Amino acid sequence: MLNRSDALDLAFHALADPTRRAMVERLSLGPASVSELGRPFAMSLPAVTQHLAVLERSGLVVSEKTGRVRTCRVEAKALSEAEQWINARRIEWERRLDRLGAYLEEITKEGSKNGEPT
Amino acid sequence: MLNRSDALDLAFHALADPTRRAMVERLSLGPASVSELGRPFAMSLPAVTQHLAVLERSGLVVSEKTGRVRTCRVEAKALSEAEQWINARRIEWERRLDRLGAYLEEITKEGSKNGEPT
Repeated sequence: MLNRSDALDLAFHALADPTRRAMVERLSLGPASVSELGRPFAMSLPAVTQHLAVLERSGLVVSEKTGRVRTCRVEAKALSEAEQWINARRIEWERRLDRLGAYLEEITKEGSKNGEPT
Repeated sequence: MLNRSDALDLAFHALADPTRRAMVERLSLGPASVSELGRPFAMSLPAVTQHLAVLERSGLVVSEKTGRVRTCRVEAKALSEAEQWINARRIEWERRLDRLGAYLEEITKEGSKNGEPT
């Protein structure tokens, strides 16, 4: 079982490549077979399989074999954890800006009360 | 000038490491000097500087030197682009689930109209 930090390492690492992001983009629209998934890229099947392995290891994608066809789909949970991490940073950052804004407003008011130029 | 895909490569790569994520977490709360930033980690200054270089290359962090002190802060734009990319995937994925839900509801209704068990 991966801890949350390891899971984020793997998810962000998987997303740090344009081919893998394109694969996740494709799968966000619906499941696809491995060959469908590889079609837009000028790359060998082993190369496609290797990218897919990185995506599966990260938990962003799961696949299932039925007969001779392996079907892939996105797993929303891993994607959502990566989103939540970034989201939390933005919220902290915006809160800080709000506090800074309120503080600047306060000292500007104080300044004008004391007859200082604003 | 980086294109959007290269910028996402660098941003996700920078976030794929727990020390660099901890640095971004710290900087989301406000600017910090390089030594403040390195303090929580049992690591040499060159190692801290190296992580910082990856963060700066990705555009997630900017730094400025005043006298002998280099102060670092988060740059919201790169973080927000990474967030938007993941967000867009979730929206596509949720839309797909909505369409699937509507379709299932439709065929269930059709089935019960025709007297089939639902």
